[in-house]
Amino acid sequence: MLADMIAVGFRYQSGVLSLLDQQQLPRTEAWVECSDLDIMVDAILALKVRGAPAIGVSACLFLASMIERGEDNGNVLLAASSALRAARPTAVNLNNYLDTVDPLLALADTAGSDWRNRACNELERIFTEDIALCEAIASNGQAVIGQKSNVLTHCNTGGLATAGRGTALGIITLAHEAGKQIHVWVDETRPLLQGGRLTSWELGKHNIPHAVICDSAAALLMQQNKVDVVITGADRIARNGDSANKIGTYSLAVLAKHHGVPFYIAAPRTTLDLQCASGADIPIEQRSAAEVRGVSLVEESIEWVPGDSPVYNPAFDVTPAALISGWILDDKLHTQAPQ
Amino acid sequence: MLADMIAVGFRYQSGVLSLLDQQQLPRTEAWVECSDLDIMVDAILALKVRGAPAIGVSACLFLASMIERGEDNGNVLLAASSALRAARPTAVNLNNYLDTVDPLLALADTAGSDWRNRACNELERIFTEDIALCEAIASNGQAVIGQKSNVLTHCNTGGLATAGRGTALGIITLAHEAGKQIHVWVDETRPLLQGGRLTSWELGKHNIPHAVICDSAAALLMQQNKVDVVITGADRIARNGDSANKIGTYSLAVLAKHHGVPFYIAAPRTTLDLQCASGADIPIEQRSAAEVRGVSLVEESIEWVPGDSPVYNPAFDVTPAALISGWILDDKLHTQAPQ
Repeated sequence: MLADMIAVGFRYQSGVLSLLDQQQLPRTEAWVECSDLDIMVDAILALKVRGAPAIGVSACLFLASMIERGEDNGNVLLAASSALRAARPTAVNLNNYLDTVDPLLALADTAGSDWRNRACNELERIFTEDIALCEAIASNGQAVIGQKSNVLTHCNTGGLATAGRGTALGIITLAHEAGKQIHVWVDETRPLLQGGRLTSWELGKHNIPHAVICDSAAALLMQQNKVDVVITGADRIARNGDSANKIGTYSLAVLAKHHGVPFYIAAPRTTLDLQCASGADIPIEQRSAAEVRGVSLVEESIEWVPGDSPVYNPAFDVTPAALISGWILDDKLHTQAPQ
Repeated sequence: MLADMIAVGFRYQSGVLSLLDQQQLPRTEAWVECSDLDIMVDAILALKVRGAPAIGVSACLFLASMIERGEDNGNVLLAASSALRAARPTAVNLNNYLDTVDPLLALADTAGSDWRNRACNELERIFTEDIALCEAIASNGQAVIGQKSNVLTHCNTGGLATAGRGTALGIITLAHEAGKQIHVWVDETRPLLQGGRLTSWELGKHNIPHAVICDSAAALLMQQNKVDVVITGADRIARNGDSANKIGTYSLAVLAKHHGVPFYIAAPRTTLDLQCASGADIPIEQRSAAEVRGVSLVEESIEWVPGDSPVYNPAFDVTPAALISGWILDDKLHTQAPQ
């Protein structure tokens, strides 16, 4: 039996995976017990679990729970792995993790009982490795945060998005734990409000002073010298350092440049895509118009854009390397495009 | 009896003022008949009428309706004027208009029946003057819009905000009527969503191609060369050209500068405050935290920021003159700070 593994957004306890339903945050802290594959797939589809590392690691722990419940049919396990991949085809971490896990699952019918330990150990390793990556990023990021610092961040890159303390937000929480006097400006991050709903919730849990702002207020704060440093996550980093991240990140990078505020990207090295020469090769995903037409939480939704008005909803933008002061990865703080 | 006076957001017909309840837009086009002072004051307080010129002109037409209903007690009329001022103390236009009207109201008890015509004519003049200002601004603004143009705008500066066709949005609607091929990027304008709710509604009425975007997506559009010009309104223009406007305007100006996109302010000359030397003298009003904690429409509201998370909600920002390509006023397009 694997030991318990506890993250902010998911828990593996006594062989059972539970997820904190992020759609219900911050109002309700509801845990979903993932007792079968349908529940787990639904949780991914319904964004109950979000953040590329959190999706990947929790999917792995779900496979561990199947094995620990006695599933020993390789075809069943591989079909589950495949269904998990299909639930979020764009999640790079999920795909990478399952690429390493699938060959072990395939051994189930043929390799005696040893395959079980090998598979479970690998799944557990994926969990502990993500925690270690977060710690390394947080540690490497301390160099960019002064003893007394106003930090601005975007979206949610904390414990909810990873198995550990997060990337950009992990740097901030570690700085606070290290005794630095931190205040965080939290971009609400329209349209899905990951900042206003989730980063604010995490900072509250850590008792870190913060304030939520509308995304369009960041420029004013920089103009008033109220921002010492901007740190965001990244979804993909191209070979030349251009970095794709949540819509609004590029806007912050331009504003930071104009005001002489340093702008950093924080991410694990697994985010590097050295096949991708530059940001020009990164397609910008368009998401549903409904996200911009209003706000939809669990049991409530509200819409305000006229039904016949079109909406344009790019999910990501790409920040050119020239606007990035440094890339805080798990190996070190890079001041040139990391290779 | 005064002739009927019809604006997008209010109508004076047969001596009765009605307001289109902007809080219910775009879903419901509900007209509020302002049959007594309490209804009119409540409409201002509840933002049923908004936009500094629209508030000022409609308040004047309400006074006209009192006079046309037979009110001839100067004290009653002056008390009404005072109550209207108090409903929105920051509205400069409202105060300026009432400063010219009050001396006429004060004549009511003493000057025979002539005061009635003089007062009503002055109140009507205020209405027609605002229409003429809008037309002049729209005409002067044509120089900055090409035959085929992607225009980005912020907040609502259209017919709903004035007695005429508006300021920044009036330039856009006139360009469309003149046969130019216009597409408008509409910033949703958090927190109160005047872009997503009202500008989109107005553009739909005019059949002008447009798309609503999250405020943080403007930078990406400029990066992709999808914005030819940015035009916004202004609440106050200082002597050196620094211009205060809805939060997010300064952000757009910085982004426009970075991308080489021209950025214009459109406003009547009455917006010039020559007593104010520069933007440093313009205080930034903080508004209610509730606006950022969620969205509140008429019968629906939704909140997502955790109750114990602070919020910072500056209502305006100030754009330095150096970032402004020109000021489109009713006298002309100024390329230097207008005096």
